[in-house]
Amino acid sequence: MKNLGILLSGRGSNFEAIARNVAAGKIPAKIALVVSNRENAPGLARARAMGLNTRFIPLQGKDREAYDRDVVAALKEHQVDWVCLAGFMRVLSPYFVRAFPGRILNIHPALLPAFPGLDAQKQALEAGVKFSGCTVHLVDEGVDTGPIVCQAVVPVLDNDTVETLSARILEEEHRIYSEAICLLLENKVRVENRRVALL
Amino acid sequence: MKNLGILLSGRGSNFEAIARNVAAGKIPAKIALVVSNRENAPGLARARAMGLNTRFIPLQGKDREAYDRDVVAALKEHQVDWVCLAGFMRVLSPYFVRAFPGRILNIHPALLPAFPGLDAQKQALEAGVKFSGCTVHLVDEGVDTGPIVCQAVVPVLDNDTVETLSARILEEEHRIYSEAICLLLENKVRVENRRVALL
Repeated sequence: MKNLGILLSGRGSNFEAIARNVAAGKIPAKIALVVSNRENAPGLARARAMGLNTRFIPLQGKDREAYDRDVVAALKEHQVDWVCLAGFMRVLSPYFVRAFPGRILNIHPALLPAFPGLDAQKQALEAGVKFSGCTVHLVDEGVDTGPIVCQAVVPVLDNDTVETLSARILEEEHRIYSEAICLLLENKVRVENRRVALL
Repeated sequence: MKNLGILLSGRGSNFEAIARNVAAGKIPAKIALVVSNRENAPGLARARAMGLNTRFIPLQGKDREAYDRDVVAALKEHQVDWVCLAGFMRVLSPYFVRAFPGRILNIHPALLPAFPGLDAQKQALEAGVKFSGCTVHLVDEGVDTGPIVCQAVVPVLDNDTVETLSARILEEEHRIYSEAICLLLENKVRVENRRVALL
């Protein structure tokens, strides 16, 4: 049984989807700790209500690495094996990435490498694409650049707004994040250069 | 009945798909001229065999705009309304783009804005994406940057090579290029900033 650490900054709907699948026995893991950089993140309250270990770790003027040392220490203290970013609105330092080599996952609301960074759905609408989607990827030291584990595609409709497109993508996020976690926890994939393939 | 001009450099399989749909009455247009910058392009021979007007226009050391003036002159001579690039391996000059404002289409074997430029399928495989596809777009003065008219998605399989992925994408290219031409010829879409929407 592997231990998951979840990092979030907001409502944590991807965290909730993962927690549901863990509770249903669909993900062979335990959520060992939920961390937030925002005290009032609704996801943190949800985690508490579920009886999970939670930790609010404030920035308090720390630089990126000093902050990440605190987060990594908390994760290690709870024997976390895999880290899942679920709307954690901070870029990880190389220190953090190296503390969990190849063991950090992120989800991004676009078909990477298209539309990395903030406001991916708005970027997609402004680019006029006919399809967008979401991507679960391993985290490396870049921003949204790590090896892609799973993707899902959704249509972009002519009358979409950021809200309607985001909602359509979010449904797929909830599905593929758990899928990707299972593939990795069960050692069903190999990572070769940037290609992640089923074994 | 609008007149199409087709520009190609190679086998012209997209040209053939368009020509088939024109012949079948599925595209309300006539192919008025097929131009190639390569004398031995198989697509040019196919066009000749179909009894279409063809023109080999050699580079002969001309600079980009001088060359494009010759091509535009040939297209205008045949009263071409819409220009379809079908594997034409040259970037158009601003002169050319302005000669057919909003009336030049291109097809690209990736989900733009991902993987513009050459070797799009190889770029996609190296990036490890799980889905790729193709894009029909209006041509502006950038490279593969114009407003997107149609896209189609295909899965990328773990054991794909450039050849197998290209073949899967090409099937969709043949389908959506004609779809996009129809949408535009029949004035069924409007272009607003970069978004092309059905009327």
